[in-house]
Amino acid sequence: MKIYELAQSPSARRVSIFLAEMGIDVERVSVDIRGGENLSDAFQAKSQNSLIPVLELNDGTTICESIAICRYFDESYPSKHSLFGQTPLEKAQIEMWQRIIEFKGLFVAMQAFRNLTGVYKDRETCVESWGEVSRQRLIEFLPTLDKRLSESTFVAGERFTVADISAYVMCNFMKNLDIHLDTGLPHLQAWFETVNQRPSVRP
Amino acid sequence: MKIYELAQSPSARRVSIFLAEMGIDVERVSVDIRGGENLSDAFQAKSQNSLIPVLELNDGTTICESIAICRYFDESYPSKHSLFGQTPLEKAQIEMWQRIIEFKGLFVAMQAFRNLTGVYKDRETCVESWGEVSRQRLIEFLPTLDKRLSESTFVAGERFTVADISAYVMCNFMKNLDIHLDTGLPHLQAWFETVNQRPSVRP
Repeated sequence: MKIYELAQSPSARRVSIFLAEMGIDVERVSVDIRGGENLSDAFQAKSQNSLIPVLELNDGTTICESIAICRYFDESYPSKHSLFGQTPLEKAQIEMWQRIIEFKGLFVAMQAFRNLTGVYKDRETCVESWGEVSRQRLIEFLPTLDKRLSESTFVAGERFTVADISAYVMCNFMKNLDIHLDTGLPHLQAWFETVNQRPSVRP
Repeated sequence: MKIYELAQSPSARRVSIFLAEMGIDVERVSVDIRGGENLSDAFQAKSQNSLIPVLELNDGTTICESIAICRYFDESYPSKHSLFGQTPLEKAQIEMWQRIIEFKGLFVAMQAFRNLTGVYKDRETCVESWGEVSRQRLIEFLPTLDKRLSESTFVAGERFTVADISAYVMCNFMKNLDIHLDTGLPHLQAWFETVNQRPSVRP
């Protein structure tokens, strides 16, 4: 079993933190995304979405999409402390928050970054003004998250879950957009410092 | 238990088709999104993402995000024929395809629509050129999906799953962007006709 990745990318970080939380070690293969290695026929045969990370099982079956990879491990090694939750309600609430973080935060941040910097302009059309709109939407989302974290210890409740992993990766990535956690977001800032102490997030 | 929704919206359609597939009937309350009813304090107190659909349980607990609502019902009424899959591998593959459809298809279509039409320009900044880029990306994604459906009966394999629901809703929504399934996408077209016969998709 191995994972193809670009270690510092937000998607790969989500899987790495998840696996570290579960105490699972998987062989890694580095893919040069900026050099376009993911566009090769060999890589595209492995990855259904042409992106990293990709989990390759021992029989050659591959799974892409970071949250689907995390789900595979969560379901393969059932635990009372599942990062996706235990009861139907808990599972739904964790998935809800995980998706809110993605759609209002992480993917907005990534669209801002790609359109503002043109980092992949060799392979996609960039629209700078959409980058600016996205950056602004991300800034406007943060108080919502701060308010949520004034009501609960972690994003989806009193336990650390996959929603916190997505939110933590988002907060780290925001630095690339010159957006920083400050005292105007006290609950988010305190939560970030708490998560930042977890051994799983060490690079 | 009740669901707050705008019945014809793609997100509400996903939940409705999912519940019809499961044979579950839930009371509906219509929310006037275009009129801004979702922006009221009363609605925002129910919906963590300010969007529909929202599932309200009998004790007042609410769950938003369509896929999280579907997950709640899937986990509450376990079935051998779960639309999210049964084994760890099946669950991961279905989630992978469901997310590929969302990120390369459904949400791209929605960004195209909102930015091209300005339907919500009273509450969000629209960037027409991003709408055009998004529409083009959606068109470029369809052959990938067509190829996938040349290899398997349904999107995630040989069974109808939640990934097919997302893909079906996407294909219907594309009409709003003047994108139509034609003979250049024979497998996608055939799959659409098959899904279109299911009683669950009848409005």
